[in-house]
Amino acid sequence: MAETEKNRGTEKRERILEGALRAFAKKGFYNTKVSEIASEAGVADGTIYLYFKNKDDLLISLFEDRMEFLIERLQTELDAVQGGVLDKIRCAITLHFQLAIQEQDLAEFITVELRQSAKFVKEYENPRFHDYLRILENLIADGQSQGVIRGDVDRRLVARSLFGALDEVLLQLTLSRSGAPDVQEKARQVAQIFTEGIVAR
Amino acid sequence: MAETEKNRGTEKRERILEGALRAFAKKGFYNTKVSEIASEAGVADGTIYLYFKNKDDLLISLFEDRMEFLIERLQTELDAVQGGVLDKIRCAITLHFQLAIQEQDLAEFITVELRQSAKFVKEYENPRFHDYLRILENLIADGQSQGVIRGDVDRRLVARSLFGALDEVLLQLTLSRSGAPDVQEKARQVAQIFTEGIVAR
Repeated sequence: MAETEKNRGTEKRERILEGALRAFAKKGFYNTKVSEIASEAGVADGTIYLYFKNKDDLLISLFEDRMEFLIERLQTELDAVQGGVLDKIRCAITLHFQLAIQEQDLAEFITVELRQSAKFVKEYENPRFHDYLRILENLIADGQSQGVIRGDVDRRLVARSLFGALDEVLLQLTLSRSGAPDVQEKARQVAQIFTEGIVAR
Repeated sequence: MAETEKNRGTEKRERILEGALRAFAKKGFYNTKVSEIASEAGVADGTIYLYFKNKDDLLISLFEDRMEFLIERLQTELDAVQGGVLDKIRCAITLHFQLAIQEQDLAEFITVELRQSAKFVKEYENPRFHDYLRILENLIADGQSQGVIRGDVDRRLVARSLFGALDEVLLQLTLSRSGAPDVQEKARQVAQIFTEGIVAR
């Protein structure tokens, strides 16, 4: 494929993903027809099947694509934190909640639509999600080797619990669509629970 | 309605709910046909519509019914705790994770199937879930008035975060269907994070 054709392909793929994100946010994963995604994306129905096998495949591709973006952003922000491991954990929490303001459709996709695909929840191995968890686990490991975090905490369990807490609060912020004026305060409090909960004394 | 007829009605309703729980656990909410629930319950297809409007209504009724049972059990166990508020929080966490061993289908229903109904997640007001959260909130309020828990923590946010953490870890325990031998240790660790995270010093 010539370079320009390849670019056109990437562009069209991205347009379909954006269309799917908007369509899912409007009608939910199960109630959205592939033809409605096509119409949101401004492509012919058949075009979608050139890029994706079916609606489940589209959902998973959308998730992987957006997670890649979120993980990159998280890593950049963490690298920029002037401070220790606990400050980095606070930063990760704040960034998560800010999705409710900055990327409402994406926040709803992650907290609501994604769970509606049984295939996604029960069968998909979900490497990007594990990448995300690994970032949290590594922060905890760093804190443990520095003696800042208790040596006996189970890193994977802390990462899972923290993700669960973030996901539930983000769900609530997203469904309320209140513009979430208290995101900063919520982030501060959740960060306090988790950092105080694992800090070495 | 005569008393025996009423009992027979209640029995049949319960049989349908149990059939739905098994059917959902096998094939997921969206892929389960009402006729399959009827067959699991050993009733005629049409009978289901005497008790429930549709599959969403059945899902919500099943949730309310089981939550009522779980809330009653939680309240009984909490009343029996010999100890303070932090011990009660530990007790609630342990009970939640034990679902993965004691009630696998119910645990899967709560962590997986329930999220698949857009109606449930986005439209349903969910009074039973709020009853559950209120129990956690009241424990925290008790702890605050006793000076055991920091006065500045947002009770509702702590309850939400805790529920999110419990739900995520229960999901993991449930999907692994490992018999979850480390439930006690996981409960101890999550309880430690949350109690250390909110305790007054």
